Amino acid sequence: MVSDNRDAAALDRLLAPASIAIVGASDNPDKIGGRPIHYMRRHGYAGTLYPINPQRAEVQGERAWPDLDALPAAPDLAIVAVAGEQAVLAVDRCAALGVSAAIVISAGFSETGEAGRRTQDAMTARARAAGMRIVGPNSQGLANFGNGAIASFSTMFLEVEPQDGPVAVISQSGGMCAMVYGLLRQRGVGVRHVHATGNEADVTVAELACAVLRDPEVRIVLLYLESLRDAGALAEAAALARARNVPLIAVKAGRSEAGARAAASHTGALANEDRTVDAFFAHHAILRARDPQELVRYAELALRGPLPQGPRMVVVSNSGASCVLAVDAAVERGLQIAPLGQATQEILGQRLPGFATTGNPVDITAALLSNNGLFGEVLPPIAQDPAADMFLIDIPVAGRGYDVARFAADTARFAQAAAKPVAVVAWQAPVASTFRAHGVPVYADEQQAVEALAALWRLHRLRERAPVEASVAPVEAPADARPGFLSEAASLALLAAQGIAVGEHALCANADAAVAAWRRMGAPVALKACSARLPHKSEHGLVALGINDEAALREALARQAQTLARLGVDDASWIVARMQRGLHELALGVRNDPVFGPVVMVGAGGKYVEALGDVALLMPPFAAEDALAALRGLRIGRLLAGVRGEPAADMQAVAEQAARLGRYALAAAGHVASIDINPVLVGAQGEGAVALDALVELSDGVSEAARRAA
Amino acid sequence: MVSDNRDAAALDRLLAPASIAIVGASDNPDKIGGRPIHYMRRHGYAGTLYPINPQRAEVQGERAWPDLDALPAAPDLAIVAVAGEQAVLAVDRCAALGVSAAIVISAGFSETGEAGRRTQDAMTARARAAGMRIVGPNSQGLANFGNGAIASFSTMFLEVEPQDGPVAVISQSGGMCAMVYGLLRQRGVGVRHVHATGNEADVTVAELACAVLRDPEVRIVLLYLESLRDAGALAEAAALARARNVPLIAVKAGRSEAGARAAASHTGALANEDRTVDAFFAHHAILRARDPQELVRYAELALRGPLPQGPRMVVVSNSGASCVLAVDAAVERGLQIAPLGQATQEILGQRLPGFATTGNPVDITAALLSNNGLFGEVLPPIAQDPAADMFLIDIPVAGRGYDVARFAADTARFAQAAAKPVAVVAWQAPVASTFRAHGVPVYADEQQAVEALAALWRLHRLRERAPVEASVAPVEAPADARPGFLSEAASLALLAAQGIAVGEHALCANADAAVAAWRRMGAPVALKACSARLPHKSEHGLVALGINDEAALREALARQAQTLARLGVDDASWIVARMQRGLHELALGVRNDPVFGPVVMVGAGGKYVEALGDVALLMPPFAAEDALAALRGLRIGRLLAGVRGEPAADMQAVAEQAARLGRYALAAAGHVASIDINPVLVGAQGEGAVALDALVELSDGVSEAARRAA
Repeated sequence: MVSDNRDAAALDRLLAPASIAIVGASDNPDKIGGRPIHYMRRHGYAGTLYPINPQRAEVQGERAWPDLDALPAAPDLAIVAVAGEQAVLAVDRCAALGVSAAIVISAGFSETGEAGRRTQDAMTARARAAGMRIVGPNSQGLANFGNGAIASFSTMFLEVEPQDGPVAVISQSGGMCAMVYGLLRQRGVGVRHVHATGNEADVTVAELACAVLRDPEVRIVLLYLESLRDAGALAEAAALARARNVPLIAVKAGRSEAGARAAASHTGALANEDRTVDAFFAHHAILRARDPQELVRYAELALRGPLPQGPRMVVVSNSGASCVLAVDAAVERGLQIAPLGQATQEILGQRLPGFATTGNPVDITAALLSNNGLFGEVLPPIAQDPAADMFLIDIPVAGRGYDVARFAADTARFAQAAAKPVAVVAWQAPVASTFRAHGVPVYADEQQAVEALAALWRLHRLRERAPVEASVAPVEAPADARPGFLSEAASLALLAAQGIAVGEHALCANADAAVAAWRRMGAPVALKACSARLPHKSEHGLVALGINDEAALREALARQAQTLARLGVDDASWIVARMQRGLHELALGVRNDPVFGPVVMVGAGGKYVEALGDVALLMPPFAAEDALAALRGLRIGRLLAGVRGEPAADMQAVAEQAARLGRYALAAAGHVASIDINPVLVGAQGEGAVALDALVELSDGVSEAARRAA
Repeated sequence: MVSDNRDAAALDRLLAPASIAIVGASDNPDKIGGRPIHYMRRHGYAGTLYPINPQRAEVQGERAWPDLDALPAAPDLAIVAVAGEQAVLAVDRCAALGVSAAIVISAGFSETGEAGRRTQDAMTARARAAGMRIVGPNSQGLANFGNGAIASFSTMFLEVEPQDGPVAVISQSGGMCAMVYGLLRQRGVGVRHVHATGNEADVTVAELACAVLRDPEVRIVLLYLESLRDAGALAEAAALARARNVPLIAVKAGRSEAGARAAASHTGALANEDRTVDAFFAHHAILRARDPQELVRYAELALRGPLPQGPRMVVVSNSGASCVLAVDAAVERGLQIAPLGQATQEILGQRLPGFATTGNPVDITAALLSNNGLFGEVLPPIAQDPAADMFLIDIPVAGRGYDVARFAADTARFAQAAAKPVAVVAWQAPVASTFRAHGVPVYADEQQAVEALAALWRLHRLRERAPVEASVAPVEAPADARPGFLSEAASLALLAAQGIAVGEHALCANADAAVAAWRRMGAPVALKACSARLPHKSEHGLVALGINDEAALREALARQAQTLARLGVDDASWIVARMQRGLHELALGVRNDPVFGPVVMVGAGGKYVEALGDVALLMPPFAAEDALAALRGLRIGRLLAGVRGEPAADMQAVAEQAARLGRYALAAAGHVASIDINPVLVGAQGEGAVALDALVELSDGVSEAARRAA
């Protein structure tokens, strides 16, 4: 949708309209219909305002118009701030007059239930048919402090003093939009774009993200989402952000099932599977924040310096206890505390009192109280040390006797010289504001500072990932395929055709064929009943293991045949599979998410795969290297690396299979609903990995392909 | 130490001295030797001050004395604020004059290295020999705002306005002591005790915790610790706190290995194993906070209302998005979001607009802006609903148009009526301070509020645990025991004697005996070489499994005999053990911690017990019920409960063995260093659990017992 050029132009005009009509304009700047006019006059909107109010000749000093039809020209934008049926009529009239876009502030649509949703859908359909975009309904509006187009009634612009700046905030929720704005301004950060999409009948957060990324002044984009339905537009925004080196940071609320339910009753939106959201964000290098406060903490750090280029943190504090707390927080978030170089330590040793510690953390002790220049003496050598990727300056106690302004100036100079991220921890308001005034980001505690540093290091790594070329050519569904499960044999054949190694096995019609297959293999075998109607064969006792003589094989087959008869399965044959040895059992899988498309799972295999949940999700296409990192991050990652004298497992082989599976899942997304490969038996390094059992499920897509072919 | 009555009296006098000498008294209230005098005059200390200053006749308006010997009587307390050698001389003189206690503010002792430590130890030894207690050295001092005895030089009492109140803060670090004090006062909480112990040459945080708990006005005790050496005193403080229903909340920094190293270089203290600290805190119902900020957030909630009596949270907000964020936060911390009762929902349905949600979370929507009375209408029925254990009131947006004072008054009334914990989330400073002024605790975000609610619910559960009677009678070490490992057979015998079920096995001297044992068992067996010199026999291939014929048994034994010869082990015999089937392999263990004593481990067993680390620690004595909860909390907890049609495991049997092991570990703490039982094979419910392998390590304690017996 957003890649359409005409639409991009319409969205750009939405953020920079040459003329704006306000339907329901009020002379009272505290009324919803009055506030946008008040804001635009105050913040220097240079376009034409058309207040629509049949009762007044003038509104807040601007000439008023009795109705939309009376306007001399169709405005670029209409703000609809009248209630109920009036709002629908106004939207229809705007569409008829050729208005480019309408922001529908009015509530009472899909958020009130089914009837409201029908009214909203019909109104939107009529507008889109006439070529008009709709923001909302139930939207707080859009605000652009770059050009003064404040088409928003948010009261937050009265609570904190607006200031144009490099940040764009886009949110489904008006409340969160206002809150993020307020938190940023509280931290002294300038904000240009403040947009709330409300019910999202038409324009989405993701589309507006693309639009603000076309504004060259925007240096960071912050999103608040409760549901995602246009993953493609968000992927496009992410690509734009990456190309411009603009951090894209997003809250996706409704992480828990109960939270997703609450979100659904808030916006009526579809719930997204949360780990899939994580995989999608990681794939597109979108940094995920837990809540609006964290979003703002990340943003402040990202704005004030470069992203961390490595995980090694150096801590400097006037309190030994704060050093301990900072180190704990860093280690718990996967950062490293590496010692400073010998040369640095020697210089610090000369400049600090004897009882200070110079390695890292650097505890300059309460000696700061008697020598307010200590910061300025200690920081320059640290700035030059190659052993540091980021810095945390922790000042838990200051006040009378401390020259905080000097500390702040010294720290700002240090940040400049080091050209690496610096975060300050200070809970005392005057200390924090002094550092902020010097452009240094400040956090209330070590947890928050370290969380932000670790998050931006994560973002750096996500951005560093080499782009993976996707094989975009869709593959055909199997010729005779129907929706539903394939048999194990057909599933394994399909995977083998994609270059995924499967265990040695033979499909046998009867006992004689099974015996012949076993003799050919010359080794213990497993016997498994095989039918598309048996997706969960082991639960019915239709798997026999470790058979190595004819009588036992025939007996097992006869027993399974009885079970099949009881189950009414009359189309089964048998898989005879060589028993294989390996080091560990893993699992691979694919789910085709309705919003995000195929997602690949890698994890610990065996019968407890769901119960243990030791799995990671990856969004294809991805490199084997990405899958390798995911395998290492599993709880069994340490086992796979080799413990207790065992060899390391051939994780590379599994990772390559996962990458291959991902490419196939993308190519076959039209007809593959899911794939489960469990176990994948992995041997020692160089010995490879083989799929021993698999279950492929085809979607309705195959029927459609068949219909098209017919 | 602290249970000694004379010592308790000395500590009580330390906090309420009738007379205080200040060695190094200064007329300048900004100097370290001047500040305590300034504070005590300002905060109405009613006892006698003896400023010691040979240069002046008067100090800050008080009569000064040339030296300690000139005083008319020995003071209860001396503050030593002179540097270096002078400090040691002053301490010695105090001891000689019969001063009860000295607070040594002077630095330059153990924190500077080995020489400083020796000086400190010698000074302390001389003081203790003379019956004088020492706080510090390198201490910020003690402050009691209940009686104005502010024997502290903290500048924080200048940064925030002191106010007496129900809180006691005790910290090893002066910086953290000051910070916790400042954070509490910033939140409007009154604080009585503010004590920093510094190097802890003598008086510890735990001892002072006992002392402040004897002050009936103290209603909550907050600790900051970096190392713990007197676990007994802390246990005593915890018992006092529990008896008085006073929450005891503690930060123990140095959670990570790197953090513990930083702590060691900060205070030179012994590092504690962090999970053992957790187990100790849980056992004694001490609530652990991560850092000083969290400590203060917990404290504010604990002071303002009762502890949560259940896990069900009700959320009320004027923003649907905040509802979602709060629910996410609650679920992620193990709280529950249960719907409100039908009757409550009906009342809410009548009072709220149609598009509001009434189930839980309760989204009263922006309708609050047009009806500022909505809070007052909505909260009373919710207060009465039995489906709520705690409440979160979330106000992300307020300001112009909102009657916040009315919301705050309504909320305070509600908290009173509900008599359950209520936390408010508000980030706007005027909103937060309005609620605080009404005595309602306020948090900056949902995470912090929910964290505090969940933590206090945890504290409630810890306090509800029924006390477990410990068998205190120590058991004797085995007659011929020596320090080191017992053989497997001896280890199993020792456990069996304690009533722990062990697998059927026989100890055999040779192949013939082994064959006879196998025949007796009439089932497949395992053959294991057995010697006290083979604690890790499986790593040497000295375990053969599933043997069920004579030739194989003899062959395996011969192979093992060869290995033993190669290893030079000449005292081995063989264990023949019946192969047993079970559902899952678990592990039990004991470690005897140098500070905390015996700790029991329950966890997932098998060869990967360390690599997977799916274990929980419990401090004995504990009930089987506590072990059961620990087993359920393991990652394999779901498996043990029965998945994929498997029966539930007999967790009760394992839990009872764990409890028994704990009682034994306590009784045998004098001579048992460690016990490892792995695997413990657990069957289905009612089938029990058996120890299949065990390794007991005896400590030097057995030699001592032998020496005493000799």
